[in-house]
Parts: sequence; C-alpha cells; structure tokens
Amino acid sequence: MTNKDARTPASTQNPTETSAGGGAGKSVGWHKAYVEGARPDLRVPVRQVHLTNGQSVTLYDTSGPYTDPLVDTDVRRGLAPLRENWIVARGDTEEYAGRPVRPEDDGIKHTSPRGGLRNLDAVFPGRPRLPRRGREGRAVTQLAYARRGEITPEMEFVAIRENVSPEVVREEIAAGRAVLPANVNHPEIEPMIIGKRFLVKVNANIGNSAVTSSIEEEVEKMTWATRWGADTVMDLSTGRNIHTTREWVLRNSPVPIGTVPLYQALEKVDGRAEELTWEIYKDTVIEQAEQGVDYMTVHAGVRLAYVPLTANRKTGIVSRGGSIMAAWCLAHHKESFLYENFEELCEILAAYDVTYSLGDGLRPGSIADANDEAQFAELRTLGELNRIAKRFHVQTMIEGPGHVPMHKIKENIDLQQEICEEAPFYTLGPLTTDVAPAYDHITSGIGAAMIAWWGTAMLCYVTPKEHLGLPNRDDVKTGVITYKIAAHAADLAKGHPGAQEWDDALSDARFEFRWEDQFNLALDPDTAREFHDETLPAEPAKTAHFCSMCGPKFCSMRISQDIRREHGGSRAEIEEGMAQKSKEFAASGNRVYLPVVD
Amino acid sequence: MTNKDARTPASTQNPTETSAGGGAGKSVGWHKAYVEGARPDLRVPVRQVHLTNGQSVTLYDTSGPYTDPLVDTDVRRGLAPLRENWIVARGDTEEYAGRPVRPEDDGIKHTSPRGGLRNLDAVFPGRPRLPRRGREGRAVTQLAYARRGEITPEMEFVAIRENVSPEVVREEIAAGRAVLPANVNHPEIEPMIIGKRFLVKVNANIGNSAVTSSIEEEVEKMTWATRWGADTVMDLSTGRNIHTTREWVLRNSPVPIGTVPLYQALEKVDGRAEELTWEIYKDTVIEQAEQGVDYMTVHAGVRLAYVPLTANRKTGIVSRGGSIMAAWCLAHHKESFLYENFEELCEILAAYDVTYSLGDGLRPGSIADANDEAQFAELRTLGELNRIAKRFHVQTMIEGPGHVPMHKIKENIDLQQEICEEAPFYTLGPLTTDVAPAYDHITSGIGAAMIAWWGTAMLCYVTPKEHLGLPNRDDVKTGVITYKIAAHAADLAKGHPGAQEWDDALSDARFEFRWEDQFNLALDPDTAREFHDETLPAEPAKTAHFCSMCGPKFCSMRISQDIRREHGGSRAEIEEGMAQKSKEFAASGNRVYLPVVD
Repeated sequence: MTNKDARTPASTQNPTETSAGGGAGKSVGWHKAYVEGARPDLRVPVRQVHLTNGQSVTLYDTSGPYTDPLVDTDVRRGLAPLRENWIVARGDTEEYAGRPVRPEDDGIKHTSPRGGLRNLDAVFPGRPRLPRRGREGRAVTQLAYARRGEITPEMEFVAIRENVSPEVVREEIAAGRAVLPANVNHPEIEPMIIGKRFLVKVNANIGNSAVTSSIEEEVEKMTWATRWGADTVMDLSTGRNIHTTREWVLRNSPVPIGTVPLYQALEKVDGRAEELTWEIYKDTVIEQAEQGVDYMTVHAGVRLAYVPLTANRKTGIVSRGGSIMAAWCLAHHKESFLYENFEELCEILAAYDVTYSLGDGLRPGSIADANDEAQFAELRTLGELNRIAKRFHVQTMIEGPGHVPMHKIKENIDLQQEICEEAPFYTLGPLTTDVAPAYDHITSGIGAAMIAWWGTAMLCYVTPKEHLGLPNRDDVKTGVITYKIAAHAADLAKGHPGAQEWDDALSDARFEFRWEDQFNLALDPDTAREFHDETLPAEPAKTAHFCSMCGPKFCSMRISQDIRREHGGSRAEIEEGMAQKSKEFAASGNRVYLPVVD
Repeated sequence: MTNKDARTPASTQNPTETSAGGGAGKSVGWHKAYVEGARPDLRVPVRQVHLTNGQSVTLYDTSGPYTDPLVDTDVRRGLAPLRENWIVARGDTEEYAGRPVRPEDDGIKHTSPRGGLRNLDAVFPGRPRLPRRGREGRAVTQLAYARRGEITPEMEFVAIRENVSPEVVREEIAAGRAVLPANVNHPEIEPMIIGKRFLVKVNANIGNSAVTSSIEEEVEKMTWATRWGADTVMDLSTGRNIHTTREWVLRNSPVPIGTVPLYQALEKVDGRAEELTWEIYKDTVIEQAEQGVDYMTVHAGVRLAYVPLTANRKTGIVSRGGSIMAAWCLAHHKESFLYENFEELCEILAAYDVTYSLGDGLRPGSIADANDEAQFAELRTLGELNRIAKRFHVQTMIEGPGHVPMHKIKENIDLQQEICEEAPFYTLGPLTTDVAPAYDHITSGIGAAMIAWWGTAMLCYVTPKEHLGLPNRDDVKTGVITYKIAAHAADLAKGHPGAQEWDDALSDARFEFRWEDQFNLALDPDTAREFHDETLPAEPAKTAHFCSMCGPKFCSMRISQDIRREHGGSRAEIEEGMAQKSKEFAASGNRVYLPVVD
C-alpha cells in the first residue's frame, strides 16, 4: 500500500477487478473490486470508478457482496461467513448449545388478533448454527487482542480499508480510541473501525414498530442503506417478530448490527416498564449476543438521582431507553438495574465481543434543554462506566445528543473526550433547531458535520421522517446520503489523508465537462444524472461544454477554458503568458484606483 | 413594542388580524396579520399562528400581500406601491422621461427562429409609470438619510419587523454594517434589512436561461420563493425577454430584487465578452435602475492582474460575471472597465438608491481552490471599492464564496469583516464538499449555517439542481427551506433575541402532543403534516399521545409525561417530589459504583 487512503486514485493501488457494476458503457462506470491483503482470504471491497480520461478512482465501499455480480447472494441463505476461519483459528472460542429460542422472543406473549409471526416462512431458513462464545478465562475481544499486541485479520482488513498501517489500527483500539465491532457470532461482516483517527462513519436505523412494516421490508432497508454508504445498521424493532427480524438482518448484513436490548426486554413484559428485571434483560442480551449483534446500546447512565434533573425540562426525557429506565427507577424507587449489574453485563459482552454503545438516555430533545445538568450528569456516569468496561476488555463507544444549537455543540465533544478518555463518540445529529419537522435530516446534518469535524467518530443518521413517522425506502436513502455528506465534509475539515482526492477528481471532471465521470463519482450518481437529464435530456448534452444552468454563452467554466486555450497550451504556459501580461500591467503603473470625491 | 423580537409569542404584541390564511380549523391555524407603526400607512406583515392551547405565536413573514385574503392581488396589475407616498413626501426625487425601452433590451438583436418576445401579452400591462431619481445635488439613499440622523419610514418598518428600536436600525445603516435595499423605483416592497445585528436573511435566485423557462414561470417562482421565506430574490435571467421578465417580477415582488447587469449587457453584444463597453454596461445599469432593481451584483473586483492567479486552479473562474470580466480584461489587455469607472457607477446607483452587492468573481469553485491568492486578492479590492461606494453614500454589501471546507470557513468571514469594515457579508453557501451533486443544498446548507453564525448577514440559497440544471418549483422550495433552516440555526447560535421562542413553542407542542400546533409552527407545515399522515393517516392520530415512529408503548414523551403525572401535578411539585426521593437516595449512600476487578 503506497498511497494514503482508500479514497485515492487507483493507479497506485492494485485492486482485483471483478465485473461491471454500473455506469453508462463498457469502458466507463464503476466496478466492484477488491484489494488483497497478506492472506488470500483477506479481500477488501472497494468501488472502482473508471473515468473517461482513462484514470480511475477507488472509493470506500459498504455495499457488501450484493454489488458484486460474481457473487451469488440469496437472502434466504444469508451471506458467506467471511470471518469464520479467522475466529475458529484463534482457538479461544467454543460452540455451545445456546439459549433455546422462545415464543416470547418474537412477542408472541401479547399477540394481537392478527397473531405473532405472520407466517412460517418468516423463520430464517439458513443452515442451523450453534452459538459461539469465549472459552473460560479467555479474553476474546479485539480490545484484548490489541492490548496483547496482536494484529488480527480484522485489524488488517480495516487497515487496508482505511489505508493506514495495521499497527495504527491496533494502537487506536488498544488505547480505547477506536472500536472494531465484530461479534464472534456475526462472521458475515466486512470488518470496519470507528474512531476519530479514521474516516467518519454513519449509522442507519431500521426497525419495525408496533404500528407498521414487515421483516422483508427491514432486510431490504438494511441492504438499501448499506448500498448508499451506511457503515453500520441499528435494528430498533419494537413490534412483533423482533427475534426473527433480527436473524434475517444479521445473516444478510455485511456491516455490524447494533440494537437496544431494552426494547425487546420491554416487549417480553408486555410494555410495562416496572415489570422489567435484571434477569429478563440479561436473558435478552444473551439471546441477542448469540445471534451475533455487534454492538448494543445500554442506558446504564440513567441513574435514579438524575431523573429529577429532567423535571423542569422543556421536553423531559426523549430517549426511549432513557424514559423506560427512568420509569423503572421511579416505580421501584431504586437505582437502575443496568447500573447496579454493569459488571456482570461486561462479562457477558466480553464473552462474545459485543461492543458497548453507552446510551445517552438523558440527551436533550429540544434546543432549550441542550447541555443541561441532567445531560452532563449522565455523561460523567458514562465516563465511569467506560472505565469499568475497559477493565473487562469490552470495546466501548459513547452516545451523544440530540438537539443542540450550534454554539453549544463543541462543548459536547470536548467534555465527552475528556470524561470518557477519548472513547469514540457516536452522536445523533445534533439537530441545530427544532422548527423544521420533515427536514430534520438537514437540521441535524449541519450539527453532524460540525461535531464530526471536532472529533465525533460515528454519526447516527436522521431521516426526513424524524418526529413524524417511520422512514420508508426514500427516507432511508436521503438520510444516509445526507450523513455521508456530513461525514465526508468532516473528513475534509480534519484533513483526513486522501479525503480531498475524491473532491478533486469530481471537480476535475466538472471543469473538463466530463459529465459521465461527474455522475459516476457523485455520492448519488442516479439522482445527479436524473437532475441533469431533466433540463438537458439529450445524449450529446453529456459531452456539452456547458450546463443547463447557464447555457452555452454564460458558462463560466467554458469561458475559463477558453481563456486558457487562447493564452497558452498547458497550465504552466498559460500562467507564464498571463503572468507576462500581468508584469506589463504592473510596469505600467498598476496603481490603486483612488477616489477624488468624498 | 415590549417584546424582543417579531418571533415571539403574540400576547405582548398587538397585531391586527385579518382573516384565515390556512390551518385545519376555524380556531387554529395561521393568519396574516399586521403590526401597526407610528403612522397608519406603516403596517408590518406577520404570520400569526394560533395554537390549540389558546396561545399564539408571531412569525416573521416575507410572503407579501399574496397570503392576505383581504387583498385583491393581480399579477397583471402588480402590487400596490406601499412606499410611494414616503418617497414622494421626502421631496428629494423627481420623475423624468427616462431611457426608452429598446428591442435589444429583450435580446431581440440575436433572436432565434422562434423570435424574441414570444407574444405581445408578455409585455407587462400595468399602468405606465415614469422613472424617478434623486434631484441634482440630493443624496437619496437610506445610508445618506441614516448618516444625517433621519429615521425614514422604511427604517421604522424594519425596526418593527426585527423588534429593535428604529435608532438601532439607523445606527447600523449609518455605520455601513447593514443595508436596506430599496430603489426609489420599487415602491412595492415591504422594507427589510440585511446586517449581522439582525435576523439572518436568505436570497433565492430565479431567472430564465437560453435553454428553458418562461416569464410566467419566473414570476411564479418569485412569489413561491417568498411564500417559503425568501427575503430577497435575484433575477439572473440570461436568455430572451430579460427586460420584460424583470418588469413583471419587479411589479409583483414584495421583496427587494437583485440582478447582475453584466448578464444583460452581454446579451446586448450577442454574448461576445470582448465587445462589452462601459457605455453598454452603464446604459444597462440605468435601464435596470429605472425599472426598480434594488441591488446589483458588480464584479468590479476582478482586476486584470488577478486573472493569472487563477491559472493553476482546479476549476478556474466559476463566477459567470467573473469569467466574463476576466475574458474582457485579457482580450483587451486592459484593466476592468468596471474598476476604472467605479466612481461614475457609484453616482448612478446613488441617484436611485440601488445597493451594491460587490461580486466575488474569483470565488473558489472547488474545495481545492478555497481561500487562495486569487480569492483574497479580489477581497482586498472589494474592501477598497466598499470605501469608495460609501463616499457616494451608496449602500454596499460584499459577496462571498463558494466552495470552502469547514475548517477554512471562518477565515472568510473574519477577513471580510476586517477588510470591508463590517459591511454585510452575503455568501453563496459555502459548499463544504464537491462530491454530492444533486444534494448541494445540503453540502452548502452546512457551510451557510456556520458562516451565518459567525456573522454573515445574508445567505444566497443553493438548490438541489446546482451544477446540474435549472431549478423547478420543488427545487426552489427545497432550497429556500434549507436556507431558512441554516439562517434560523444561526440566529439561535448568535443568541438573537427571541429566536429561541419559536423553537420553544414548537417543542412545547411536541411534548404535549399538540400535533396540529406542531404542523402549523413548522417551517413547512404542509410537508410535516403529509409525512405524519403517511404513517398514521387517521384524524384521531393527530391527538394521539404517541407518534408513528415508536408506537404507543415506546413513546418516550408519553412516558415522561406519565412520570410527571404520577409524581405530582405541576412541574414544581414533580421536582419537589422527585427531589425528595433523590435526597433519600443520597442519604442512603449514593455511592459511586466501584468495580472490584480489573
């Protein structure tokens, strides 16, 4: 690897091309390709964009085997277990009988007249599989390996993906500044890393609710979200079929899957928060860990003493998990069972290498509540829990807000980094104003870009439906694209090595009127092409030296090119020629225009 | 006026309500209303939102008489000349014969086979009118009045709109920190102010091009843009019918209209930049000033000596005006005629109170070119021109970029404020990455919010079609809404008095499940309502104590409310009750959970 980043011209990389993935012709467009690592089973997927000028550009790719026409995918079979050999070869995990799946795992207990599972076909038909966990006394997390100085195949994989050395990856994980979420029961994923030293990542939420949506829709939303660039997906299902939906999603997901186990636990007690117990919660965590969930949001920072701090808030507690735990604490007038049993939880997560995402249950839900006492009290507790998790070698990231006006954003990341010893920050937006429901991907995209620039490692997307309804397919795409913009804007602002080469390639194409290249390099080639064709649909317009915005006569880029053409051949010549004329001008006085009146 | 800002609950204001403008019922929704000033003909329009809890909220309104059902508007007649009496009463202007309209003003000179004006009906049918200009020796600009200590009705109007004292308005204009664009030939406008001490403003561009669109479409785009919140509109037409289109737009616009006279001048020389002359340009400026254009972009900062500085750029010169002037300078190898004749231009603009928008013809068109030598060389010249303009009492704002990565944005506003003596900055975005054509409203909305927070006074919107095609009606709306979000986010971050009360009102409605209020307070009520109904269409859902996102069981807001209900009546009681329990908890030890293992 001689170049700095996976987002660099491919001339210095050597990906193995497979076959045409899209684009307008045989010679241009983009292909799914792979960069090979030190071992033959270590092939890192990239999106290879072929330009009309013969060059090519390599982009980070999250879309999984679905965009590789040489791979025969089938959602009923699931993806190939890419990591299985690596996990087995380590010899520190074992298969075991596992927890039997129970009817209430799918919410059967409180079925509506329409029944629980809608049909038998819903059960994932892939091959039966025993769950795996760490052997007694063995620390099987990527954090444990990194601390011992071991570079795993997973670390090597992400090193190639991010175009850094494997040692940098190991160091960042060992220091707790990055996480590599990879449950030993989710061998299907293509490893990725979350940390401020790496490319900013984007999470997309999916999940059915009691109101609407089906298993098929959720699986399709997951593949759709990763196609547009989601780096992880959280399954936030709260309705029926939670267990089964998750099984389908996990077996078909090329990216790490996160969940909030509390949601399913609450379903098991029929929605009555006060009936929740540590045992039910623990059982749910084990159930999900055995399935392969890679990271779990745990709202262990919502302590009894903090609930009164929310009393005078404009919008109270807006986190679902936070409000459930607050309700439980108040009903029993006891400290949170998540907080009280946090060590045991660490032991469980460590056995599967499930990563913590310590939830911000008291995040502000309105501009008025930003950066208040409740929010920062919880953050301090998350710092305490982060230290405990690390003692158990559990990888940990910290969740952040929420609704925060621009001038209060920086305090969030600065405090979090200080209190949580630089553990990766994972924020929801933040939304920079409350007044634009239906546009909260934008209100939050602004805050997301800023907080990522300042060090947030992963951004949880917000769709246009936030506060209003469940996102459909279009909303998922809009949310992901908006957040990829925020993430890439932050990569640029952080000076991430190689980030700008993508912008440069696109701007070169724009200046040289290579329309097809511009489309193929775009974050969303389909929409860019469609918008162009709306005004100038004819094929010759794709090679026209102007665009439909200004028309031929007013095209500044064309005029700029004419200037260059008329005043020299190469750029150097033009500059020389113009500089010469400029010198003549300077010699002639070059004086500042002085006004003579007042 | 006892409250701080027009965006405050109306209980302390006393607007005169007219009639129902929209909303779901008789008792709720919104109305067009007016706040009356010291004189009966000074009525400031507001949007009065009536909530289901009996309260109301007053919002800034740019939509003009079109949203007042008591006003009979007719685009063929034009709007009533609100300011006419004020202008006449000052006695410092005179009507005169004016420049005759010539066929080439509409681009007849170079007609295509389809002809120039498409039909006679295109000529604006409103009453004939003589143009007006300042009498010999009289300074008739708002800047001149402000410097003399006069508070004009226009200043009083904006003082009410912004909820500040008229003296603050006068001071900011006198200091050159704000402009009040108001050509004496555009009496139809509702005065507004652009300056960092006031609400951040948004400009929307419209304009036909050689490729597409008609007069009717442009007028409709203008009223559509102001309906969603555009504070000014620039008519950037470059095709045929430029003069006539502008006449229709001006006579029907309640907001100031800006133009780039160079575009029309170029049409008059059949698109050959080198054939441009100062005389043709000057004639065009007078033509447009007589019609009533309120501000004009003038690219007088593109000097011959700066053109070579763009030679090694990634994307050369991307400003249309900039590239035209650069082409002229190089063709003649002479200093720009705009720079050379800037004083005479000041005299013309001063006679009509046309405001300068000093164009940044060398703004960066890609991330790679941001903050380069060419850009800042031009900025220094704009500072020089700003000082000249002020000597002629011409109101002046300064245009800014463009494409700028986040970490280079602040330098732009800081330098501009220093070099241009705090003259209002008026920026296009900036776009924070180049890689997302079709989403440049978002790439630029991020930069716009940030630069406005740091002091930019007006933001020029960018639509999803930027770089790709001409915006249609939907694109115009999306662009305006995105930029209203950026502007309001900046108002919040700047701590603009009263800005947060809008967010608070909406968040209160959200927390209390007042769905109709949430919709009516939203920046875009129609889309918010539509998105909600997509998932939960039934009318009872509008009063449901949960939303479609989480369903009833998981609604954090409902749980938060339950907590409050169960633990006391008023917020004070709840806090007391919870605080009591919290104290008990503290008394019981309240100890930090200490880990026992490593």
